[in-house]
Amino acid sequence: MNYKIKKIKLSKIIKFLNLKLNIKKDVSIKNISNLEIASKGDISFCFNSKYLNFLKKTKATACIISKNFLKFVPDNSIPIISENPQIDFIKISNLFYEKYALDKISKKIIKTKDIKKKFKNITFGNNFICEEGAKIGKNVNIGHNVIIKENSIIHDNVNIGSNVVISNSIICKNVNICDGSIIGKKGFGFKFFKGELLRIPHIGKVIISEGAEIGSNCNIDRGSVADTVIGKYTFLDNQIQIAQYVKIGDYCMLASQVGVSGSTIIGNHVSIGGQSGISGHLKIGNNVKIGGKTGVIKNIDDNKTVMGYPAMELREFIKKNIIK
Amino acid sequence: MNYKIKKIKLSKIIKFLNLKLNIKKDVSIKNISNLEIASKGDISFCFNSKYLNFLKKTKATACIISKNFLKFVPDNSIPIISENPQIDFIKISNLFYEKYALDKISKKIIKTKDIKKKFKNITFGNNFICEEGAKIGKNVNIGHNVIIKENSIIHDNVNIGSNVVISNSIICKNVNICDGSIIGKKGFGFKFFKGELLRIPHIGKVIISEGAEIGSNCNIDRGSVADTVIGKYTFLDNQIQIAQYVKIGDYCMLASQVGVSGSTIIGNHVSIGGQSGISGHLKIGNNVKIGGKTGVIKNIDDNKTVMGYPAMELREFIKKNIIK
Amino acid sequence: MNYKIKKIKLSKIIKFLNLKLNIKKDVSIKNISNLEIASKGDISFCFNSKYLNFLKKTKATACIISKNFLKFVPDNSIPIISENPQIDFIKISNLFYEKYALDKISKKIIKTKDIKKKFKNITFGNNFICEEGAKIGKNVNIGHNVIIKENSIIHDNVNIGSNVVISNSIICKNVNICDGSIIGKKGFGFKFFKGELLRIPHIGKVIISEGAEIGSNCNIDRGSVADTVIGKYTFLDNQIQIAQYVKIGDYCMLASQVGVSGSTIIGNHVSIGGQSGISGHLKIGNNVKIGGKTGVIKNIDDNKTVMGYPAMELREFIKKNIIK
Repeated sequence: MNYKIKKIKLSKIIKFLNLKLNIKKDVSIKNISNLEIASKGDISFCFNSKYLNFLKKTKATACIISKNFLKFVPDNSIPIISENPQIDFIKISNLFYEKYALDKISKKIIKTKDIKKKFKNITFGNNFICEEGAKIGKNVNIGHNVIIKENSIIHDNVNIGSNVVISNSIICKNVNICDGSIIGKKGFGFKFFKGELLRIPHIGKVIISEGAEIGSNCNIDRGSVADTVIGKYTFLDNQIQIAQYVKIGDYCMLASQVGVSGSTIIGNHVSIGGQSGISGHLKIGNNVKIGGKTGVIKNIDDNKTVMGYPAMELREFIKKNIIK
Repeated sequence: MNYKIKKIKLSKIIKFLNLKLNIKKDVSIKNISNLEIASKGDISFCFNSKYLNFLKKTKATACIISKNFLKFVPDNSIPIISENPQIDFIKISNLFYEKYALDKISKKIIKTKDIKKKFKNITFGNNFICEEGAKIGKNVNIGHNVIIKENSIIHDNVNIGSNVVISNSIICKNVNICDGSIIGKKGFGFKFFKGELLRIPHIGKVIISEGAEIGSNCNIDRGSVADTVIGKYTFLDNQIQIAQYVKIGDYCMLASQVGVSGSTIIGNHVSIGGQSGISGHLKIGNNVKIGGKTGVIKNIDDNKTVMGYPAMELREFIKKNIIK
Repeated sequence: MNYKIKKIKLSKIIKFLNLKLNIKKDVSIKNISNLEIASKGDISFCFNSKYLNFLKKTKATACIISKNFLKFVPDNSIPIISENPQIDFIKISNLFYEKYALDKISKKIIKTKDIKKKFKNITFGNNFICEEGAKIGKNVNIGHNVIIKENSIIHDNVNIGSNVVISNSIICKNVNICDGSIIGKKGFGFKFFKGELLRIPHIGKVIISEGAEIGSNCNIDRGSVADTVIGKYTFLDNQIQIAQYVKIGDYCMLASQVGVSGSTIIGNHVSIGGQSGISGHLKIGNNVKIGGKTGVIKNIDDNKTVMGYPAMELREFIKKNIIK
């Protein structure tokens, strides 16, 4: 199922949203994006003051915003004032990516005998399902019952276990993915608005950087508009859940059953103990150490060591819980 | 493997359990059930005072009970006094559902070429394993390596990801189930009694109601006697565990890695943050909000917002942990 | 992929590690092992004072140690003093088990028609992938899409669900393994040393003892040098993570989403509530009861009941959290 992007006139978008707004000059909108990575031709949105700094510098051609954010919209961007910028953005997303809210399979599967011809020096197990459009590099080992979907690129020297499902992802060289992990599924995104269910289309990718390892039965969801990224030589143990648009830096270590909620950014050289959870939209600095079963609900500065629920500095955790 | 139910005379059941009891009139018992949903011809049990209200109103023809519950058994039900009502009920269950304690596969698989003939307007991926007896509606999309077992009904417009296993379930219309989820497996039920392992047969179904969504790598177990139910337009994120005989209401939202233990009932419009756990046999009201990583060990009234381990009202959690 | 063990002269090992050490007599080293189970011909290591008692009694022919442990090395063992015993041991492990740090599939799959001839009285579903070298006993039931790898032995009367992956494991009689579980994958082990990634080879097995049950979507990793063991009649619910070299005793009960970190030893008749986590290298006694969502970070004596994060005795948990 390839992306179905259409150009849409901004006037048509405004009409579709039932907004009363006069724009001086009509323009073509090519795609949806978020404030940070938007480029000319994109439409974006802002309703959370956390992202005002991105709004001020956005390159989006148009931006759906709350009224009080009007003064922060840069000159290159046409402000679209809305009572519900997020809801309206979701509606538009579905306009650009019609019927794109659910993951579906392609009907075009490369025949087993053609896989060896198409990709060089790869080995694969029984029942390897490779959809047309997927790209696979050299010296790649693939287990049994693996599914690689059309929007995926697998680079050289990658090792993939059995029962793995990869879609909408770029797997860089020397990555190791263990059995049963699901990479690149749509994120968990929907809103109920005036009794109607609105599903958020997910069009970002998952990027697993060079040398990283993903354990067994992990989930790494694609971002809604931007990419979910696992850094270089970052190691994930089993049963880890990484939500949409999370970015994890290089040389991190996540122990089993960790969960990271959407849009959180984690620095380099971070270690996270088993069963810890990190809320969404947070920023975790470099060289942070997070103890096991910790619940992180606010940002953590560089070089901190934390533990507990809610997370506190380790010395405080010890003082509070262990020395008495 | 279809259910193997036999009618069994109550006198035979009493003899099998080695109970000394004279019943005035012998009757035929058709099935096992729980107090709440039992109908005429069923045998049920009660050993927990939590369920006395159900005992008082049960329609079960016979009821295995602790001696002190005798006065609560209604006139329509024959009391069977036992020192271990639960153990005796498990023993009887195995009598009715011989060799039914383990999930097994059917040997009758519908041939791929026959699936298209049998079910109208469905699409499915490679290696779709559909056991005879399964029913599939219109406009259903099914991924690769999906297994649908004989006791399952899939209604119209359902979307099923890859590597999904569905058994003993009713999947209502417009439901979306993501990759790797396992729906309708037997629950986690067994007892050791006098050195002997007794497995509890699970004969309930899983019902996923209209418009609900189940994320990736989730588990939803069937109930032992009654059904596990996910309500309408309720959304589950990835890696969620729903145990036997849980009932979740409509329009709920469960974030990733949540676990709900057996027999717990959750109201409508409830949201549960990531990694939260809810103990078994609890009642969670309507419009309840449960923060991330919360451990719920007692009932929660309507409209409450809780967080913490153990769960407390949000304002108390903030007072205790954040403001100091 | 069979083990590739070579005999290596100790002098060659010392040279490979760039250690300056004169040994009186050169010997052949046959294998790597840990202190406790090492036998003549093995090389082992010790850098953690927790394991000094094992060092004193080890039968290993050579032992890589920190300088200050020299006096504890028994006469039968040649001490190899190193600044980084663990790192040097990992390097040697990769010497013995070249290219063994990643799980790969065998290219030799037994043809479906030959499986019935080879193994007696077994039933199996569609797409059963059985690698040559696997051994399967009598009366074994195997679901759909199951993968059994070459280094595995399945004993009589075992029941295996669908989408299960078993490698490097011994599954004893009467065991039940549910859908989607992954047994015997390599553990989560690596070190960064002077900018170089060192993967720890995992050569231990997983042993699931008689009558045990493993739920759905569980992970049980093999040990790095010694075996991971699940005891007799021990029951695991869904989504449980058991790390390398964990040993769980007999008649235990682990509720869903529990995680046990590497090298922890759990006694008999232990029950662990849902979502609890146990740190690595701990010892949990017999008859211990661990409440739901508990975080265990130190040893627990026999017969204790604990709950909380960090774990405390139940009466203390109740006093602190519930009665006020």
